[in-house]
Amino acid sequence: MAFVFPRPGVAGADGGQLTIRLVFTDIDGVWTDGSMYYDNVDSPSGELKRFHTYDSAGVKYCRLAGVPVVVITGESTEIVARRCRKLGIDRLCQGVSDKLTEATRLAAEYGIPLSECAYVGDDVPDIPLLEAVGYSAAPANAPAYVAARAMMVLGTAGGNGAFREFVEGMLPQHRRDELLSLWLASLRTPAH
Amino acid sequence: MAFVFPRPGVAGADGGQLTIRLVFTDIDGVWTDGSMYYDNVDSPSGELKRFHTYDSAGVKYCRLAGVPVVVITGESTEIVARRCRKLGIDRLCQGVSDKLTEATRLAAEYGIPLSECAYVGDDVPDIPLLEAVGYSAAPANAPAYVAARAMMVLGTAGGNGAFREFVEGMLPQHRRDELLSLWLASLRTPAH
Amino acid sequence: MAFVFPRPGVAGADGGQLTIRLVFTDIDGVWTDGSMYYDNVDSPSGELKRFHTYDSAGVKYCRLAGVPVVVITGESTEIVARRCRKLGIDRLCQGVSDKLTEATRLAAEYGIPLSECAYVGDDVPDIPLLEAVGYSAAPANAPAYVAARAMMVLGTAGGNGAFREFVEGMLPQHRRDELLSLWLASLRTPAH
Amino acid sequence: MAFVFPRPGVAGADGGQLTIRLVFTDIDGVWTDGSMYYDNVDSPSGELKRFHTYDSAGVKYCRLAGVPVVVITGESTEIVARRCRKLGIDRLCQGVSDKLTEATRLAAEYGIPLSECAYVGDDVPDIPLLEAVGYSAAPANAPAYVAARAMMVLGTAGGNGAFREFVEGMLPQHRRDELLSLWLASLRTPAH
Repeated sequence: MAFVFPRPGVAGADGGQLTIRLVFTDIDGVWTDGSMYYDNVDSPSGELKRFHTYDSAGVKYCRLAGVPVVVITGESTEIVARRCRKLGIDRLCQGVSDKLTEATRLAAEYGIPLSECAYVGDDVPDIPLLEAVGYSAAPANAPAYVAARAMMVLGTAGGNGAFREFVEGMLPQHRRDELLSLWLASLRTPAH
Repeated sequence: MAFVFPRPGVAGADGGQLTIRLVFTDIDGVWTDGSMYYDNVDSPSGELKRFHTYDSAGVKYCRLAGVPVVVITGESTEIVARRCRKLGIDRLCQGVSDKLTEATRLAAEYGIPLSECAYVGDDVPDIPLLEAVGYSAAPANAPAYVAARAMMVLGTAGGNGAFREFVEGMLPQHRRDELLSLWLASLRTPAH
Repeated sequence: MAFVFPRPGVAGADGGQLTIRLVFTDIDGVWTDGSMYYDNVDSPSGELKRFHTYDSAGVKYCRLAGVPVVVITGESTEIVARRCRKLGIDRLCQGVSDKLTEATRLAAEYGIPLSECAYVGDDVPDIPLLEAVGYSAAPANAPAYVAARAMMVLGTAGGNGAFREFVEGMLPQHRRDELLSLWLASLRTPAH
Repeated sequence: MAFVFPRPGVAGADGGQLTIRLVFTDIDGVWTDGSMYYDNVDSPSGELKRFHTYDSAGVKYCRLAGVPVVVITGESTEIVARRCRKLGIDRLCQGVSDKLTEATRLAAEYGIPLSECAYVGDDVPDIPLLEAVGYSAAPANAPAYVAARAMMVLGTAGGNGAFREFVEGMLPQHRRDELLSLWLASLRTPAH
């Protein structure tokens, strides 16, 4: 249960393969475009975040491949908890300042080395984890000096399917086709 | 009561005509830009979708032409029900996993073969129906490997009038002018 | 109390001057980007529209110039009424199907011929009024066959300051500078 | 406790250094994209603004550098008060018509001359203050005749991180790296 794919950005066959068994992801600026909507009332309904339906396919491909998805975010809101429940996310860690330490602890719990974990994040607090995992990426709109610390800059901005692109980037085409067939089969009405 | 138009993407007069008597449409990523807004409260008012006024003209042209519009979506929300009531949509099927089977059943109910149905959708669960109907399209921002399964990629992204462009694409200019005149006439205050 | 400006799109001095004494404006797709946000509850708080602060300057320039602004829209919502109150709009006509007839009636009430009225609108129901007034425009994102009926296509899309650009287009630079000075003077704290 | 940086837009070493000890900022069109969301109910929860998470890093860099951030805005909403509390803004002045007079008063209170203050604003009421401070900027989407009054036009539009770019523009790279290290250190879990 892993994503196995050629190391990106290395021409030819010599770049070697990456094996990823656990996917960590940030939320604000990755699953959202960074927007935070506020109204005039300091109540739980007074704040909104905007997610994108395309990222649900990223989670779906991980589930079909048996690769757990763990959310690690500095903020702490019921908004994110609701979105994670909707998508069936394996584990949600909110209010995390030191993402590297938290991810190290979690990876150990799963018995997976950080070198076989992936992470997508977009800002300063993400830098240590972006540099520590086996595969990392930043959305298209991340600040340049943050994106420079990731292995890969995605073509998609946060909140527009960046997480999906991140996951699909770990799927060689034959693997994606395979998971896509499984997905379509799971939707089919059983014949009587 | 049909849209009759030259098969798109085929140069010259030899492409033949398409005849469409029933229009199916997806919602998220087509009528919306894929955004899903959440607040902190797990209540019916805690989720928003963003529609576009331009798509209402797409529904209007279908009604003026006597072509039914049927919504088929995997999600199930009162949000979509409200939007459909506002636009006078003929039929709304929510929570549909197997869209091809459902559309086949509905088309039979209308007594119209799938080859005379159109569908616009944007993601993996839409692929079987995109491939089965007589005319299909995907919005500009659909994932490339999904769009490749549709007959046509629209110039407009989801939530920005993609459904309208989809319908207008089935209207040769003289037909659109005709429907536009009917529309304007219907708005005119009767003289006393 | 009027905007006097060279007829746009005509090179040289021979195009003549336009004199506009009354400004009509559409709302959805002009003051908004066409978005309509819905939640799951069929209540007044269950729908949102998105306006842009830049359009308030358009209204401000009209007020400073003594040119009334009249909103004419097909929809009928308290949302638009609230926005109009906030901006001090002279007159709000909602739920209007036949915009040309309504505008003709209103212009007569103001004692101003339609040839000295301006209108900005973006869709099919706007066509008759766009063609009847002395000066008309459509936002950048209006459907091409609608925009073609207006005298001018704005560089700004609906909801991003299109109304402001529309008004500023009626202000030769010396006039805009004059109104801008009046505006700044009105903000100044009186010296003691 | 100041930002010291080469005067922007002047080639070579002769442009001199700017020293900024106090940062003023506008809100609508700078911290937001100018959007104002309304629902049908004239209540505090009936209005939304959209902020961007990237601007929080701008505030963070100011705090790490010991440079106060003061918000000066013409509107007056609890929305902005909530956002400022969230980001730990030093001072919030709402409902300000005459921003130059207010900023002059505030700068005197801090004992800092206006020539050592910076301001970012985007519209007509911002012009006098943009012209009076030692360093000023306008977001990418500000009206051209307003932006022309600022020393600098940012590459980022309002609501997409314009305030962050404004602050980072006052940080020579070695200084930004220094603050970034402080920031990361502050996030680190203490070892036991």
